[in-house]
Amino acid sequence: MIAVDVMGGDRAPQVVLEGGLAAARKSVPIAFYGPGTMIEQWLDAKDPAWRTYAITVVDAPEAIDMAAEPVSAVRKKTNSSLVRAVASVSSGKSVAVVSAGNSGALMAASTLFIGKQEGVLRPAIAGFLPSSQGKVLVLDLGANTDCRSHHLQQFAHMGVNYLTHLTKNIRPRVGVLSNGHEPGKGNVIVKEAHQLLQKDTLNFIGNVEPYDIFAGRADVVVCDGFVGNVLLKTMESVAEQVHTDTAARDEMDSVRGGALLLGVKGVVLVCHGNADARAIEQALVQAWNVSHGNNYK
Amino acid sequence: MIAVDVMGGDRAPQVVLEGGLAAARKSVPIAFYGPGTMIEQWLDAKDPAWRTYAITVVDAPEAIDMAAEPVSAVRKKTNSSLVRAVASVSSGKSVAVVSAGNSGALMAASTLFIGKQEGVLRPAIAGFLPSSQGKVLVLDLGANTDCRSHHLQQFAHMGVNYLTHLTKNIRPRVGVLSNGHEPGKGNVIVKEAHQLLQKDTLNFIGNVEPYDIFAGRADVVVCDGFVGNVLLKTMESVAEQVHTDTAARDEMDSVRGGALLLGVKGVVLVCHGNADARAIEQALVQAWNVSHGNNYK
Repeated sequence: MIAVDVMGGDRAPQVVLEGGLAAARKSVPIAFYGPGTMIEQWLDAKDPAWRTYAITVVDAPEAIDMAAEPVSAVRKKTNSSLVRAVASVSSGKSVAVVSAGNSGALMAASTLFIGKQEGVLRPAIAGFLPSSQGKVLVLDLGANTDCRSHHLQQFAHMGVNYLTHLTKNIRPRVGVLSNGHEPGKGNVIVKEAHQLLQKDTLNFIGNVEPYDIFAGRADVVVCDGFVGNVLLKTMESVAEQVHTDTAARDEMDSVRGGALLLGVKGVVLVCHGNADARAIEQALVQAWNVSHGNNYK
Repeated sequence: MIAVDVMGGDRAPQVVLEGGLAAARKSVPIAFYGPGTMIEQWLDAKDPAWRTYAITVVDAPEAIDMAAEPVSAVRKKTNSSLVRAVASVSSGKSVAVVSAGNSGALMAASTLFIGKQEGVLRPAIAGFLPSSQGKVLVLDLGANTDCRSHHLQQFAHMGVNYLTHLTKNIRPRVGVLSNGHEPGKGNVIVKEAHQLLQKDTLNFIGNVEPYDIFAGRADVVVCDGFVGNVLLKTMESVAEQVHTDTAARDEMDSVRGGALLLGVKGVVLVCHGNADARAIEQALVQAWNVSHGNNYK
């Protein structure tokens, strides 16, 4: 069962319910967390046959605001769609959770209820960005806006572990995002991370620039969550502006389904706040695949 | 006269000479700084009529490597094409300088020879990024990889001053680049800069995200040079990958001509290291327009 935070996202609950229903029609078992009566009424109106699909509705009447302070919101709103959906993973009821809600709250709830993997300092949001040579795993895409160099080093390990598990590529090429290839390029944190990674056991190829990502010159690229978020949103904005080329735009949209929160003991998929129904549906299918060891695409 | 650093750039001297010759044919007076004999031979072979254009060749036999440590390179190589071209602005021989060379060295030389404007802590690279509503001035695009919040605040003033001078828009909308609109979003520096700008006299509209830039929701957007460089290069990489749509790509290429080094007492245009001849030509025409008070486009 995949838990869905029905009240999370700029366009919730509408697009979340639509995406969830679409995934359920593709045989992904869905648990909708949110105001129960509202959800059932919506489903009744939309598709009277919904009770024949693998859909469960769990009443969680509260909602966490997109702009709420994450930690206090999670502690206060224990009956919110977000917290209840995350908690269902820790209790074993669900194999994964998908939310387009307050990403800070999602991370806080995941850390609190599901727990960090042993040794992990900070969970990070990891997503596959498109390249001409397949996909590149980039992290952190927004969980940690202020990082130290050893955090970036650990993100590299988390990304490599995940990719190795997923693709059987045992020596993924690791790069650190910078403003130039030379080891002396970067801000202070990036320069330090470069030094740490050079002494590390990973297959570190050095600094990479944005065009190296899109050219597929690395398999795992690390950056702090502020920079990663700017990278991701710039990529999407440009692809969207170049609206005449639908194929290219779809390609750039590929990360939109959902990004994975790495470093927690469960499958947590983070969707964009402005995710549409298709993105939610994709994230739910991804969540199902990831939690069943299928290839993450 | 516009001074050109012939030996600056990944594809120098070839593309710099081509771009310079093209601009000279458009009646922009050009001073080529670099190895004199080589330049004259190249011009003789390419266009025997070059001596009838407003072209001057100044012998500056040394070259500063793209990867050289900026400050020591500028101090040591006083007879380099970059240093001599910059110095020609301080001596009044040239009205502007254009270089695709080592941008750190260009900034160091500009600070040393041309000098900072009064009160400016750090010159910053400013460029116009395309939006659906005209262009947006973004700075810093790469001069300062590590900034404090008051640097960002000053970048806002430098950008506003420039834009006001240029467009007669006396209340440009100022935003600070962040990972969310809420004042609490951003890394530590961005959050502090938000507070400083809120108390300032500028027309501050708050945090902006990358898509706000491309939607033209601000006129001036500030960020540190590391983030700005990632933003710029991501934009260009995506636009380049979407190669089938030439019009869109040209639009995204618009900043490529050259970005302006704001905060120094002279016109300094910074081109990409990988600038092609067309970009150099555009930068030279821009330099001419900027130094003659025409609209910067």
